[in-house]
Amino acid sequence: MPDILHRVGVKLSSPKDTYKALTTCEGLSSWWTDDTTGESKVGGVLKFRFGQRGGFDIKVLELKPDQHVLWQVVDGPEEWIGTKVSFDLKQDGDYTIVLFKHQGWKEPVEFMHHCSTKWAVFLMSLKSVLETGKGAPYPNDVKLDNWN
Amino acid sequence: MPDILHRVGVKLSSPKDTYKALTTCEGLSSWWTDDTTGESKVGGVLKFRFGQRGGFDIKVLELKPDQHVLWQVVDGPEEWIGTKVSFDLKQDGDYTIVLFKHQGWKEPVEFMHHCSTKWAVFLMSLKSVLETGKGAPYPNDVKLDNWN
Repeated sequence: MPDILHRVGVKLSSPKDTYKALTTCEGLSSWWTDDTTGESKVGGVLKFRFGQRGGFDIKVLELKPDQHVLWQVVDGPEEWIGTKVSFDLKQDGDYTIVLFKHQGWKEPVEFMHHCSTKWAVFLMSLKSVLETGKGAPYPNDVKLDNWN
Repeated sequence: MPDILHRVGVKLSSPKDTYKALTTCEGLSSWWTDDTTGESKVGGVLKFRFGQRGGFDIKVLELKPDQHVLWQVVDGPEEWIGTKVSFDLKQDGDYTIVLFKHQGWKEPVEFMHHCSTKWAVFLMSLKSVLETGKGAPYPNDVKLDNWN
């Protein structure tokens, strides 16, 4: 099954800061969508909303402080349900490296192409908020195409 | 085998303009790397260079005007050799949709994660040059991480 893979590096940052941006509503609101609620604890559910476009309910499956986050999508677009999203963090010189994977897609549909590019843009937003204090979460996200 | 997939939409543009940006050295220089040489004809080889980081020699396998471009990497980083890159274009309302695929990766190595994000950034550069006249080709490309 095809996966979406990405890698970004956050300059002059520690994995601790990046982990916080991935595991608190405040952090997630700063780079993905400003409408993020729920509980980031194992077994908890996070709700990410994008206005009229709907959103995702995501269950937290695994948390390893400053190293690893694993989620599973429990509600949202049909293609997303059951898929898993992971972030693995490591220090490499001056950078915190984020290895991202969105796995479990059944088919490489056109929507998956869109989501792959959109994840890249949001991960650049994560990098940006950690490096400069300014991210581009929804509704101020970078638009890609007619699917937004 | 895992593939890199992306989708961007170029607003108020025709597939003809996008096709030109994918099939002429001038066009490719405007969004990928300003050091692009070679011949964009079936059987021709394009050479993309990124200063000291080296680059790629890419053979043109298929060209269908305003619709489809297929390349195969013949020289460059080991992981890229033999892989294929395609661009499929279609009009969708006000947008020219670009469906991108980089296929034939043997393993989902960390470098593939990097290249996936980097392709997204370059495709946003393609979108930008067609919409605004200003792209971000190497050496003015958006940097992602310690691999650049």
